[in-house]
Amino acid sequence: MKDLLTESLTKEDATALILQAKKRKSLTWEGIAEGIAMSPVWTHSAAMGMNAFPEAKARAIIDLLDLPEEALEALTESPTKIWDQTVPTDPCIYRFYEIVGVYGPTLKALIHEKFGDGIMSAIDFDMKVEKVPHEKGDRVKVEMSGKYLQYNCW
Amino acid sequence: MKDLLTESLTKEDATALILQAKKRKSLTWEGIAEGIAMSPVWTHSAAMGMNAFPEAKARAIIDLLDLPEEALEALTESPTKIWDQTVPTDPCIYRFYEIVGVYGPTLKALIHEKFGDGIMSAIDFDMKVEKVPHEKGDRVKVEMSGKYLQYNCW
Amino acid sequence: MKDLLTESLTKEDATALILQAKKRKSLTWEGIAEGIAMSPVWTHSAAMGMNAFPEAKARAIIDLLDLPEEALEALTESPTKIWDQTVPTDPCIYRFYEIVGVYGPTLKALIHEKFGDGIMSAIDFDMKVEKVPHEKGDRVKVEMSGKYLQYNCW
Amino acid sequence: MKDLLTESLTKEDATALILQAKKRKSLTWEGIAEGIAMSPVWTHSAAMGMNAFPEAKARAIIDLLDLPEEALEALTESPTKIWDQTVPTDPCIYRFYEIVGVYGPTLKALIHEKFGDGIMSAIDFDMKVEKVPHEKGDRVKVEMSGKYLQYNCW
Amino acid sequence: MKDLLTESLTKEDATALILQAKKRKSLTWEGIAEGIAMSPVWTHSAAMGMNAFPEAKARAIIDLLDLPEEALEALTESPTKIWDQTVPTDPCIYRFYEIVGVYGPTLKALIHEKFGDGIMSAIDFDMKVEKVPHEKGDRVKVEMSGKYLQYNCW
Amino acid sequence: MKDLLTESLTKEDATALILQAKKRKSLTWEGIAEGIAMSPVWTHSAAMGMNAFPEAKARAIIDLLDLPEEALEALTESPTKIWDQTVPTDPCIYRFYEIVGVYGPTLKALIHEKFGDGIMSAIDFDMKVEKVPHEKGDRVKVEMSGKYLQYNCW
Amino acid sequence: MKDLLTESLTKEDATALILQAKKRKSLTWEGIAEGIAMSPVWTHSAAMGMNAFPEAKARAIIDLLDLPEEALEALTESPTKIWDQTVPTDPCIYRFYEIVGVYGPTLKALIHEKFGDGIMSAIDFDMKVEKVPHEKGDRVKVEMSGKYLQYNCW
Amino acid sequence: MKDLLTESLTKEDATALILQAKKRKSLTWEGIAEGIAMSPVWTHSAAMGMNAFPEAKARAIIDLLDLPEEALEALTESPTKIWDQTVPTDPCIYRFYEIVGVYGPTLKALIHEKFGDGIMSAIDFDMKVEKVPHEKGDRVKVEMSGKYLQYNCW
Amino acid sequence: MKDLLTESLTKEDATALILQAKKRKSLTWEGIAEGIAMSPVWTHSAAMGMNAFPEAKARAIIDLLDLPEEALEALTESPTKIWDQTVPTDPCIYRFYEIVGVYGPTLKALIHEKFGDGIMSAIDFDMKVEKVPHEKGDRVKVEMSGKYLQYNCW
Amino acid sequence: MKDLLTESLTKEDATALILQAKKRKSLTWEGIAEGIAMSPVWTHSAAMGMNAFPEAKARAIIDLLDLPEEALEALTESPTKIWDQTVPTDPCIYRFYEIVGVYGPTLKALIHEKFGDGIMSAIDFDMKVEKVPHEKGDRVKVEMSGKYLQYNCW
Repeated sequence: MKDLLTESLTKEDATALILQAKKRKSLTWEGIAEGIAMSPVWTHSAAMGMNAFPEAKARAIIDLLDLPEEALEALTESPTKIWDQTVPTDPCIYRFYEIVGVYGPTLKALIHEKFGDGIMSAIDFDMKVEKVPHEKGDRVKVEMSGKYLQYNCW
Repeated sequence: MKDLLTESLTKEDATALILQAKKRKSLTWEGIAEGIAMSPVWTHSAAMGMNAFPEAKARAIIDLLDLPEEALEALTESPTKIWDQTVPTDPCIYRFYEIVGVYGPTLKALIHEKFGDGIMSAIDFDMKVEKVPHEKGDRVKVEMSGKYLQYNCW
Repeated sequence: MKDLLTESLTKEDATALILQAKKRKSLTWEGIAEGIAMSPVWTHSAAMGMNAFPEAKARAIIDLLDLPEEALEALTESPTKIWDQTVPTDPCIYRFYEIVGVYGPTLKALIHEKFGDGIMSAIDFDMKVEKVPHEKGDRVKVEMSGKYLQYNCW
Repeated sequence: MKDLLTESLTKEDATALILQAKKRKSLTWEGIAEGIAMSPVWTHSAAMGMNAFPEAKARAIIDLLDLPEEALEALTESPTKIWDQTVPTDPCIYRFYEIVGVYGPTLKALIHEKFGDGIMSAIDFDMKVEKVPHEKGDRVKVEMSGKYLQYNCW
Repeated sequence: MKDLLTESLTKEDATALILQAKKRKSLTWEGIAEGIAMSPVWTHSAAMGMNAFPEAKARAIIDLLDLPEEALEALTESPTKIWDQTVPTDPCIYRFYEIVGVYGPTLKALIHEKFGDGIMSAIDFDMKVEKVPHEKGDRVKVEMSGKYLQYNCW
Repeated sequence: MKDLLTESLTKEDATALILQAKKRKSLTWEGIAEGIAMSPVWTHSAAMGMNAFPEAKARAIIDLLDLPEEALEALTESPTKIWDQTVPTDPCIYRFYEIVGVYGPTLKALIHEKFGDGIMSAIDFDMKVEKVPHEKGDRVKVEMSGKYLQYNCW
Repeated sequence: MKDLLTESLTKEDATALILQAKKRKSLTWEGIAEGIAMSPVWTHSAAMGMNAFPEAKARAIIDLLDLPEEALEALTESPTKIWDQTVPTDPCIYRFYEIVGVYGPTLKALIHEKFGDGIMSAIDFDMKVEKVPHEKGDRVKVEMSGKYLQYNCW
Repeated sequence: MKDLLTESLTKEDATALILQAKKRKSLTWEGIAEGIAMSPVWTHSAAMGMNAFPEAKARAIIDLLDLPEEALEALTESPTKIWDQTVPTDPCIYRFYEIVGVYGPTLKALIHEKFGDGIMSAIDFDMKVEKVPHEKGDRVKVEMSGKYLQYNCW
Repeated sequence: MKDLLTESLTKEDATALILQAKKRKSLTWEGIAEGIAMSPVWTHSAAMGMNAFPEAKARAIIDLLDLPEEALEALTESPTKIWDQTVPTDPCIYRFYEIVGVYGPTLKALIHEKFGDGIMSAIDFDMKVEKVPHEKGDRVKVEMSGKYLQYNCW
Repeated sequence: MKDLLTESLTKEDATALILQAKKRKSLTWEGIAEGIAMSPVWTHSAAMGMNAFPEAKARAIIDLLDLPEEALEALTESPTKIWDQTVPTDPCIYRFYEIVGVYGPTLKALIHEKFGDGIMSAIDFDMKVEKVPHEKGDRVKVEMSGKYLQYNCW
């Protein structure tokens, strides 16, 4: 009976196929993003299975990377966003966790002061990462933008 | 013997004094920041006791807010940065935690692609929060900038 | 110096004042809600300090319950929403946690099926609780409504 | 000896078979629910192995989806309801967790006010999800109904 | 303003008053239970603030123990049931936790076998503790009884 | 070298063999328990690998269920009792956890009152589950009995 | 009303009184233990409120240390044994935790080999600590003895 | 390329080989310990991979149990001591955890009283387990001995 | 009765007294350390109550800082070393935690390679912190030294 | 489709290849480090996949250990640094965790005293381990050096 269980491609499979094609074709994330006319942050995130490709973009990346047609379904389905480490251990990611710990109340206070009683959406949201040359050492610039959502009173 | 233990002002006391003066004088964080010629993010964070005031800035905020002279020591001492909630519950702060969970690996991948094997510093770091008007609803824009630090090989 | 630290009313104080007035005046939450022309769920939540009163509603509840004028500031300030128990122990609240555990993936799947790749907002949100008489035992009916938020692609 | 251990279909297998058939037949959860004359919420939940199919409903879904007869046993057995994440990370599910955190005490207070000292059952329970068109953006409406259970005094 | 916050008796105060009266009058829990015509398990639990006294029983225990009239309100209000230790450390309580860990799946399997797909209610529930003399050492007998609740299909 | 590692039957294998035979022979736990002249609770628990079969009982269940002779060793060896969920999520098991949380201090107080400073053993222990018909709905009755163990003073 | 709540001595108070008297009289735990004709381990543990004094021993320590008569009740009542740190941080205590982690399965295997399917009681239990002079450095010797308890089959 | 990864024997493999040989030869841990002239506690612990065999002892157990020569390397390498359960669930091991929780502060106090400011080493450490016949039930005697280590002042 | 509980100075009190005197006298930790002829690391740690002062050093710091004679007892008693944060949040301390996470297995492997099967003692241990000027930015140098402890075989 | 997923070498594979070659060639970490002209700490850490090899060093270790050319990519890619145990259980690693717990605040205080308001970098960082012979027992000397990073004010 177990033979009945022939699995189709999962989002993890699609990610693995993208990573292989990226190596094989010596592409960068910026290059892939440009190739499908999306931003690098969103493209990497969707390639990792943390965002869903709209159908047109799924077709674009399948074409760009010569992925199998069967990947379409996995690429377009809504992901279940799971992370295993409540506190991330990798130093590059931990520093962002630390920033939320140290500056979280400050972000909240300034959002309330500038907008009112509400939050920045993490759904209607975009982000970019840039390299800013600097004489004392280059700087990483991260820019987030999310729609302001006002708490409802009813 | 307990009488020997007359406590001086703590960083928490200094924060409380600032909050009272801010209310009494009807100031905003932006106003206070301008008054001491620093950014609003840093000013709020230092006022909350999460950053240390350089002596000149401590004197400036004491003057601006008519704080007691005794606050100087507490304002300038290096804080021990502690947050109690491993996962923050307040929705406004949680959304930033969620962004780190969802986009942490993406930030890492793009930093590696643009800079090499290293991280963005959370110490040599600055941040600003802006309100960006938008026809479909205003947006919160958060801009972080940290020095790129390359892993050492030795 | 500590004498400088005369505290103003906190949101906890405001909650305590409301609870006392509610007892003294023998009011129900439904009654209070009606008195300030808001819903019972929102009214209780704001009274507990988990939502901010708009100024007009703060004045209304001050009038209705004969609260001191000084409560206005605490009632209107944006709350920091904190809950201590990651898993709530009270059986009445735990059952809702259990429902999220059991039916969370189902809610997600049906939202995706009906709306697309997005979520129900917990900010642009309202809820009501009703008693539905039933011959085999009355039923609690809880109705939540939140704005659908579509994930951004950029 | 290990050869003795030929396993029969598990609930996970049954779920996988349902998901495949759903794709193959291009069905929606609403369609499947209608096909077996049950609600979409219950149908998805049972299909995920979080509820047990009564025998008639198991037969109905086997017929509807052309599942193998051997799935009957797995579909009808009582599930052990397990969720791995104490705090769910997927934003769509987390928002419901957040609602329980923010409004849990309110739900409790209003249930006590309307019914007495008791709880809403999560066992004698039903739920539905609806799409409510709205000019400022469609809304997700979730309606839960559970039997009121009064605490026993003895 | 803080003077406005004169607190009334809490459930913790009521518990303290009961414990003092119990000592002063040299009563046992069995004696108090008999005095208010309730079971010892329920009586102790309600005295600890983990269950609510119906008004008649609150009056009975006030009379029996000469509690102040003001305790009535605290005794009758619905408790928020909170326990601090996820895993209890006291050996006498831990052994019951251990029994749930070891025999939980067995209780579940036998309830399913005898009743169907459902659970034992912890709300419509009663319990008693007895001493059973035994030649090899007396035994503690604990008897729980809860209403069987069948999962709803809808 | 790895070929040297031919494994013998584990307790998990023995459990799987019992479950298969139970299905194949359409037996209940009560039926199996009767067949080996033990109680249903103990029989299920031992079959799950949470208790060790005395040799005679291992032989009895091997005979009753036509298990392979090689299962004898696994059935009789002392189990390492492990449960993965500190707080069980399955509602049927959680309710017992909840009872320990709510009534743990009560069980402790009454044991102290009836017996002295000691505990109920979870080792020299037995339990049974019964169905008690009731007009307002059948009830699950669980009866535990454990030897009283007095704390030693030395 | 709060004035009604005059508290009697708690176990923590009794511990504090013992510690003060111990200092004032320059006694050691060995000395106190000898003075009440009990072992040092038990005596310290009971003095810390982790064991209950039998009435005669409570009287003996009251006499020995000139404690107030009111301490009798607190000294003799059954303690609720609580420890706050799941993993103890103090190095002297952590090493014992480490020993349980490293040698726990070994203790289990040897108890099973020597006794059968059972455990060592932590209730019918005693312990002593000795100093064993040794040329390469003195050694701490800890001797535990607990009654063997056989698992029940029923 | 994966074929390059032919693994050698791990410590887990060595443990499995020892357990099989022990069964095949019907040996006890005491018997094996005697056969290699070491104590039963150390022998079991090293066999479980929680201690490293000195080369002579590794050869001895290889000879005694007819293990393959290739096991030598795994048996002699320093183990990484890992335990998965912060709080052990098996009752036989938990009781020792409980003893550390209840008597940890007592062990600390008596070590300080007898030796000074230091700890008992868990590295320069030995332990034995004995069966002590007793009329009221045999007792498990555990004897630990560790070198006293004095805190350094510098 | 509560009046009997006049507390003596605790280690926390002694720490507070030292911190006040340090400010009043404008001393540095290096200065205090020099004044009592101990190292700065040890001196700060003992002043924080994480190490015990030998009597001579306690007298030295009392003299140096004009502490009350009553502090002697608190300064010399063995501390219970407790830290509240399993993972420290302060960035300056977290980096050391991160180093243990990243390089822990490396430290272990090199200790085994250089010394054998054992560990570095954290008890017979000393540490120093130095500032090393460097053209690309000064460096913090931390030097730890602990006695090698070989695992015992017995 | 699954056949498309032929995986290339991972960092774990590269680690396994290094460990095998190290055994086969009877090398030490010091020997390997010398062979590629890097330090032993860095070499072990990179070999474990916790640091990235610069290309030249990757080629050097491939040559030294006769690794397959395909390992180059895995050796040079930026690792995601993950550790599973929040509190490490292996005694050799735990002692370093304990040092951070006990001396973390001391390290912080002395860094602030010597440098100002900042931290020691764990990225621009190096470490060495040495064996220091000592008459009372050899000592492990660990020397860490990290760039001082000053907090930014902006």
